[in-house]
Amino acid sequence: MNPTNKLKIFNDPIYGFITIPNTLIYDLIQHPYFQRLRRISQMGMSYLVYPGAHHTRFHHALGCMHIMQKAIQTLQFKDVAISKDEENALLIAILLHDIGHGPFSHAMENSIVEDVHHEEISLLFMNELNEEFDGKLSLAIKIFKGEYHRKFMYQLISSQLDMDRMDYLRRDSFYSGVAEGNINSERLIQMMNVQDDFLVIEEKGIYSVEKFLVARRLMYWQAYLHKTSVVAEIILMKILKRAKELTQKGIHLECSKPLLFFMENKISLETFDKEKIKTFALLDDHDVMGAIKAWQFNDDFVLSSLCKMIINRDLLKIQMSDEKPEKENLVVLKQKFMKLHPISEKEADYFIFKGKLKNQAYSKSSEPIRILKKDRTIEDVVEASDQLHLKALSKPVTKYFICFPKVLLDT
Amino acid sequence: MNPTNKLKIFNDPIYGFITIPNTLIYDLIQHPYFQRLRRISQMGMSYLVYPGAHHTRFHHALGCMHIMQKAIQTLQFKDVAISKDEENALLIAILLHDIGHGPFSHAMENSIVEDVHHEEISLLFMNELNEEFDGKLSLAIKIFKGEYHRKFMYQLISSQLDMDRMDYLRRDSFYSGVAEGNINSERLIQMMNVQDDFLVIEEKGIYSVEKFLVARRLMYWQAYLHKTSVVAEIILMKILKRAKELTQKGIHLECSKPLLFFMENKISLETFDKEKIKTFALLDDHDVMGAIKAWQFNDDFVLSSLCKMIINRDLLKIQMSDEKPEKENLVVLKQKFMKLHPISEKEADYFIFKGKLKNQAYSKSSEPIRILKKDRTIEDVVEASDQLHLKALSKPVTKYFICFPKVLLDT
Amino acid sequence: MNPTNKLKIFNDPIYGFITIPNTLIYDLIQHPYFQRLRRISQMGMSYLVYPGAHHTRFHHALGCMHIMQKAIQTLQFKDVAISKDEENALLIAILLHDIGHGPFSHAMENSIVEDVHHEEISLLFMNELNEEFDGKLSLAIKIFKGEYHRKFMYQLISSQLDMDRMDYLRRDSFYSGVAEGNINSERLIQMMNVQDDFLVIEEKGIYSVEKFLVARRLMYWQAYLHKTSVVAEIILMKILKRAKELTQKGIHLECSKPLLFFMENKISLETFDKEKIKTFALLDDHDVMGAIKAWQFNDDFVLSSLCKMIINRDLLKIQMSDEKPEKENLVVLKQKFMKLHPISEKEADYFIFKGKLKNQAYSKSSEPIRILKKDRTIEDVVEASDQLHLKALSKPVTKYFICFPKVLLDT
Amino acid sequence: MNPTNKLKIFNDPIYGFITIPNTLIYDLIQHPYFQRLRRISQMGMSYLVYPGAHHTRFHHALGCMHIMQKAIQTLQFKDVAISKDEENALLIAILLHDIGHGPFSHAMENSIVEDVHHEEISLLFMNELNEEFDGKLSLAIKIFKGEYHRKFMYQLISSQLDMDRMDYLRRDSFYSGVAEGNINSERLIQMMNVQDDFLVIEEKGIYSVEKFLVARRLMYWQAYLHKTSVVAEIILMKILKRAKELTQKGIHLECSKPLLFFMENKISLETFDKEKIKTFALLDDHDVMGAIKAWQFNDDFVLSSLCKMIINRDLLKIQMSDEKPEKENLVVLKQKFMKLHPISEKEADYFIFKGKLKNQAYSKSSEPIRILKKDRTIEDVVEASDQLHLKALSKPVTKYFICFPKVLLDT
Repeated sequence: MNPTNKLKIFNDPIYGFITIPNTLIYDLIQHPYFQRLRRISQMGMSYLVYPGAHHTRFHHALGCMHIMQKAIQTLQFKDVAISKDEENALLIAILLHDIGHGPFSHAMENSIVEDVHHEEISLLFMNELNEEFDGKLSLAIKIFKGEYHRKFMYQLISSQLDMDRMDYLRRDSFYSGVAEGNINSERLIQMMNVQDDFLVIEEKGIYSVEKFLVARRLMYWQAYLHKTSVVAEIILMKILKRAKELTQKGIHLECSKPLLFFMENKISLETFDKEKIKTFALLDDHDVMGAIKAWQFNDDFVLSSLCKMIINRDLLKIQMSDEKPEKENLVVLKQKFMKLHPISEKEADYFIFKGKLKNQAYSKSSEPIRILKKDRTIEDVVEASDQLHLKALSKPVTKYFICFPKVLLDT
Repeated sequence: MNPTNKLKIFNDPIYGFITIPNTLIYDLIQHPYFQRLRRISQMGMSYLVYPGAHHTRFHHALGCMHIMQKAIQTLQFKDVAISKDEENALLIAILLHDIGHGPFSHAMENSIVEDVHHEEISLLFMNELNEEFDGKLSLAIKIFKGEYHRKFMYQLISSQLDMDRMDYLRRDSFYSGVAEGNINSERLIQMMNVQDDFLVIEEKGIYSVEKFLVARRLMYWQAYLHKTSVVAEIILMKILKRAKELTQKGIHLECSKPLLFFMENKISLETFDKEKIKTFALLDDHDVMGAIKAWQFNDDFVLSSLCKMIINRDLLKIQMSDEKPEKENLVVLKQKFMKLHPISEKEADYFIFKGKLKNQAYSKSSEPIRILKKDRTIEDVVEASDQLHLKALSKPVTKYFICFPKVLLDT
Repeated sequence: MNPTNKLKIFNDPIYGFITIPNTLIYDLIQHPYFQRLRRISQMGMSYLVYPGAHHTRFHHALGCMHIMQKAIQTLQFKDVAISKDEENALLIAILLHDIGHGPFSHAMENSIVEDVHHEEISLLFMNELNEEFDGKLSLAIKIFKGEYHRKFMYQLISSQLDMDRMDYLRRDSFYSGVAEGNINSERLIQMMNVQDDFLVIEEKGIYSVEKFLVARRLMYWQAYLHKTSVVAEIILMKILKRAKELTQKGIHLECSKPLLFFMENKISLETFDKEKIKTFALLDDHDVMGAIKAWQFNDDFVLSSLCKMIINRDLLKIQMSDEKPEKENLVVLKQKFMKLHPISEKEADYFIFKGKLKNQAYSKSSEPIRILKKDRTIEDVVEASDQLHLKALSKPVTKYFICFPKVLLDT
Repeated sequence: MNPTNKLKIFNDPIYGFITIPNTLIYDLIQHPYFQRLRRISQMGMSYLVYPGAHHTRFHHALGCMHIMQKAIQTLQFKDVAISKDEENALLIAILLHDIGHGPFSHAMENSIVEDVHHEEISLLFMNELNEEFDGKLSLAIKIFKGEYHRKFMYQLISSQLDMDRMDYLRRDSFYSGVAEGNINSERLIQMMNVQDDFLVIEEKGIYSVEKFLVARRLMYWQAYLHKTSVVAEIILMKILKRAKELTQKGIHLECSKPLLFFMENKISLETFDKEKIKTFALLDDHDVMGAIKAWQFNDDFVLSSLCKMIINRDLLKIQMSDEKPEKENLVVLKQKFMKLHPISEKEADYFIFKGKLKNQAYSKSSEPIRILKKDRTIEDVVEASDQLHLKALSKPVTKYFICFPKVLLDT
C-alpha cells in the first residue's frame, strides 16, 4: 500500500479527529491483535445500566494515543526534550497498554485465566509484536515496564494522572451519559510539565486536579461500581466458573473453540506460551455472549438460570450497605432457595453471596500527583491544596453487598 | 414488583434522561423480545469506519419514545386533542417500530430471511405481544399500520419527518462523531403542529427543515453510504449467502442453532409462523459475529476469505464513480483473480462485483413535509421555500461502484 | 396586543428555549425596570479576564425562571402540591430577585448607594411593580421575603441550592469558558423533592451535590475571585468613590444626569423613596462606562489614572498570598509612589492598598442542603455523605492581597 | 514587562484556549485601539432578539487569529511553504481586520461617518499602528490589501471561506443560541489546501462546504436579517441621523465629546486625518447608548420617541413580504400618524418607511470556493457538486419590508 494512505484519520465524537502519526503505528492498528479490541467492550456489562455504554477498547486505545500526542506537544512547547524515538515509543506504549484485555474487559481475569492481570497479558502481546516488527517496539516496552531511565515517561503511561485515566473517564462519561464524570482533559494536559524528571501539574491547575479526582470518584460510584453493573459482572464470572466446572467434569458445552480451550485448561502466567497467546487472541465478547445465549437452554439449572439473567436483564437482587452483612442472613436465604430448587449448598452459592466494594479517589501511598509550585518546588497535591478537601478524597470508602434471587424477596 | 419501581429513568447522553411513562411500557421494555435489541447494532458495520458507532436499536427505540413524548406535549400545548389512550398507543408504536430488526439491522433482510422487510417482522412481533398483553397494543398496531382515522398520528411514526428519523440522525451523528449530521430535533418538534389532520411545520421553522434535509443527505453520503460501510455490509451479506449455499449443499457449518435454522430453511413472510418468530427472536449480532469468527477457519476458500476480511478489517477495494462501470472491467478482474485462486466464475462473483447507491434527501412523491403558512394554508416544503434550494434536495443522486480484492491493485 | 403574541420564546444557548408562561409575566419582562437588566453585566468586570463574559442580568433572570419551571414540574410529578397561584408567584419571585442590581452588578453596592444590598432594592422595585400591577405580585413578594408558610418555596428562591445559583454557575461557566464550573442543573433538579416542608435532594443525588459544591468553589477561585477581576472591581469602586469625593467638593464631573444625582447625594435604605427609585432605574453599565471614558481625561490625577486603567485594561498589580501582608510594605510602596507623583497619602490609598478574599463552598451555619434518605429521614448533606469530603468543603478559605501601581515593580 | 508574561492564554468557550503567539501580537492586543474592541458589540442590536448575543469584536478578532493559526498549521503539514514572517503577517492581518469598526459594528457606517466602510478605517488604523511599531506591520498590510504576490494568503483573510466568516458564524451561533448556524470550522480547516496559489478545499470536504453555506444562509435569515434586529438597527441609524440634523441646526444635544464631534462634522474618507482617527478611536457602544439614554428625555418628539423604542425594546412594527410594498400604503400610514402627532411629512419618514433585504449564500461572481479534485484539478464548488443543490444556494433572495408605529395597528 502507498505509505501516504496510512496517514489515516479517525472520527471521534470526543476529540473530533484522531490522526495516525506514522506507518509503524498504522500497521500496529491494522494488526489482528489490535483489531480484536474492536470487539471488546470498554465498560463490560455496564450497558445494562447505561444503554449507550457500548464503546470499545479499540476506541479507548486510539483516544489515549491522541491525548498522549497532545501531552507530548505541550511538554515540548515547555522545553522538555523528547526525542522522535521517545515520542514514538510513548505513543506505542499507550496504544498497546490494554491489548491484553479479554472479553468484557475485567470479567475474565479471574475466570477465563486464573490470577493473570491484563497488563501481564498486554506485555506478552507486546513482546510478540516486537518480534514481528523487528524490535521496533523495544523502547515502548521498556517505558511500559517502568524500566526506562526517564521516569516521567512511565508516569504518562501509568500513574494517577496518566493518559489512560484521562481518556477513559471522559470517554465513559460521554458514552454512558453520566455527565458528572466528564473531565476537562485538555486543561489538565495544558497544565502538565516536567520537573526533576517527575510529571507535575502547575500550581494554577490545582482546582482542575481536584475536579478530576471528584469526577473520578463519581464515576466509580455511579458507573463502575453501580450496583447493577456489579451484579451483572459477578453473574458473568459465575457463569464462566460454572461452565469451567461442568467442562472439567466432562460435560460438553456448546461454545466457540477458543473459549472451550480456556474452559478445559487451567492457564496461569507461567504456562502462557506463544500458542496460548494465539488462542487467547481469538477470544472476544462475542465468544462469551454467544456461549451465554446457547447455555441459557442448557440442562444444568445453575448455568441456564444465570445465563437467562444476563440475556433478559433480569438479574439477582443486590442490596448495598455501609455495614458488613450478617452471615446468618445468607444462610437463611440459601435454605429458602434450596427449598424452591433441588440444588446443593455449593450450588446455592452461585445465587446467594456477599461481597464488598472499595474505592479511593486518590491514593497517597501510590505514585502521588505532584504540584509544581511557583518557586519550582514540588509538593504532593494533598499538601499543596489549601484545605482538607483533598485529604478527604484520599480516604478509602468501602461498601458491602449481598445478592440473592428476586423470588426470595416475596418470601 | 412494586409498580413504583417501574417508573425508571434511563441515562441518555443525547437527551439527558429518558423516563418510562407507565408500567405497561415498562413491561414491554423488559420483555425478552425488546431486550434483544440491546444486542443489535444500530448502524450495522459502520463501526468499521466510525469506531464510536456501537450504539444499539435498543437505545434508538428508547430515544424515539422520548421525543415522541416531547412531540405529544408540544401538540397538546397547541390545543391538538390527544387522548391518554392515543398518547400511549403512539409511544408503544414508536417504541416497537424496529423490534423486527435482525442482526446488524439491515444486513439480514436479503440473506437470513428472503425479501421480508423488518417492518413486516416488527408487525409480527407486535401481534405476538398484543396477544400476550391482552390486546393492550391494538390501538398502537392500528396506528403503526396507518389504519387509524387520525392520519397525523401515522405521520409521527412514519413520514419524512417522523420521530424515527429525528432520533436516528441525531444519535448516529452523536455516536459516530460525524458532526455535520447533527440535527436540532428539539427545535423541529417545537415547530410542529396539526392542521386538517396533517402533521405540519410552522412557517418560521422552514430553515430548520432545510437544515434537517441537508444533514440527512450528509449522513447518507458520509455515514450510511460511506464506501467502507457499504463494502463491509455487502461482504456480510455475501458471507451469509455463501453459508446458506454451503449448508444447503449439506456441509455442516459451526454456528449457533438459531442461525443454523435460518441457514437451512428458506423463510418468506407467508411461512413466518409463531415458531419461527420465536427462533428469530433468538438471533442477534452475536450469532452472526460468532459464526464469522468460526468460519474464518473454514475449509471453503470463499467463506473463510470473506470472514477474515470482516474480522481483520481488511476489506475488498471499492471504487466509486458517477458513471456506470464497464462490464468488461469486471470480466478482466475476475479472470485475473481466477488465475490466482482455483475458483469458479460464480465463486469469483463473491469477490468482484458492481452495484449502485442512490439517495434522495427529500422525496416529493412520498408523503410530503408540509408547511403551515401564517394564513393557515398548507404547502409542500419545496413550494413554500423561497428558492430553488429545496427543489435541488429532492433530486435523487446515484453513484456507482465496483469491488474487487486488493491483491488485484498491484497487477 | 393580542394575548397569544405574548407567549414568546427566547433562545438560550444553555437551555435551548425559554418559554414565557403567561401574559402577566410577559408584561413584567416588557417593563422598563426589567428591560434595564439587559444593560447590566452579570459578571461585572470579569470580561477583562474572560472576554466572553458579557452576558447580562436579563438573561440570567430568564434562565432562573426557566429552571424554576423545571423544578416545579419535577416536584408536582412527585406529588408535591403546588397551586397555580403558588407556581406563578415562584416564577415571578425568581424572575425579579435581581431587579435591584445596579451597574456592574455588585460594584455599586458600596459606592453609588451606601450599604444598601441589591436584594433590598429588588424589594423596593417589586413593591413598586406590585402597585402598578394591582397587587398581583403580593404572593411572590411574600415568598421572596421568606414570610410564606410553605418554607420550601423560599428555599427554591434563596438557599444553598436555589435556582439562582443553579443558573448563574452554569451560565457564568458557559459564557466565560471556565469549563470546570459547569454544573448539571438538570440532574440536580430531577433529584429534588419536598419532605416535611423542606426542599431536599434524594439520596442518590448526593454525588451530584458534591460535584455542584466543588464546581461552585472552583468558579469562585477561577472566576469571581480571580485576581484580575478583583482588582478591576476595586478600581471601579475607587473611581466612583473618588468621583463622589470630587463632586461633593463642588467639582463638576461630566457624566449622565442619573449618575450625577447619585454622586451628589448620599442615599441609604431609609431615604430611598419613590423618586429615587425612578432615578436609580435609569442607571446601568453605560452610565458608569460613559463616565469612566470621559473621566480618563479629567484633570484630577487620581480619577484620570484609575479610569485609564479600566479603559486600556492596564490595571494595578495585585499580589495574592495565604498570609496577611505586612503593613510596612504598604507604607514603603506609598512613599515610593508619592515620590513619583505629587499626591497626598490619602490619595495614595487609591493606588496602594490591601484586602482579603474569603469563600466557603458550603456553609453549615446557613440553611443546609438536606438529603432525603431512603427511610424518609432528612440529614444535612455533610452528615449524609460517606466521608470527610464534604466536611472539607465547608471550611472557609481566606486569601490576602495587596495592590499597587505596576511602575513600582521596577523600583 | 518580562517577555514570558506576554505569552498569555485567553479562555474561549468555543475553542477552549487561545494562545498569543508572540510579544508583537501581545503588544498589539494591549494597544488602546485594540482594547476598544472590547466595547463594541459583534452583533449590533441583535441582543434585543437573542439575549445572549453580547459578545464583542475583541473576542471575534482573537477567535479569527486562533483559527488562522490552525489553518497555517494544516497547510504547513501539507507542505505548503509559509515562512515565519508570512505566518506572523497573516495573524496580524486577521487580528486587525475589524479594528476600524465603529459603535454597534455596522450601524455607524452610514450615520456617524458617511459612506466610509469599516475596512477602510481598519486600514487607516493599521497604518497608524505600523508607524508606531516601526514598520513591523508592513507585510500584514500588504496581504490585507490583496497586494502580496501569494494570492491564497489574501483568500485566508477575505473570501467566501475566510477565517473571518469561519469564526463569526460559529461565534454568533454559539452566543445567540441559533443552533442551526453552528459550523464545523475544524473540519473545514482540515480540508484546506493550496493548489496553483489558490486556497482550495479537498474534494471529500464538499459536503462540509455545502453545510457551511446552508448554515450561513440560515444565520442571515434567522439572525443578521431577523426582522427585529433589522428594525432596531434602522432605528439606531435614524436616531443618529436625527441627532446630526438637530446638531447641525445648532441644537445642543447631551452626549460624549467624541460623539458630539462626529455629530457636528461631516467626515468622509478623504478628510479622515490622524486627528480624526484619534477621536474615532474614543468611540464605542457606550457613547451611543449613553446618548440614547439621555436623548429619550429630549424635547424633540422624533428623537425622544426613537430613543425610547430602543431603551424599552418597544420597537416599530415591521412587516415583511416577498413583494414590493405599495407606495400608497405608506402614504396612508403617514397621514394617519400625522393626525396623531403634529409632525411634518419629512419627520414622519422617521417612523414610516420601507426597505429591502438581500442575501446570497454563495456568490459565483465573487472569488469562488474552489474544490481540489482527486486529479489535482480545481473546480468551482458549484460545478464540483453532484447536483443542483449548490446552484440553488447561489441565487440571491430578496425580501421587502415596511415599518410603522404600533399605534397604527389598531387604527
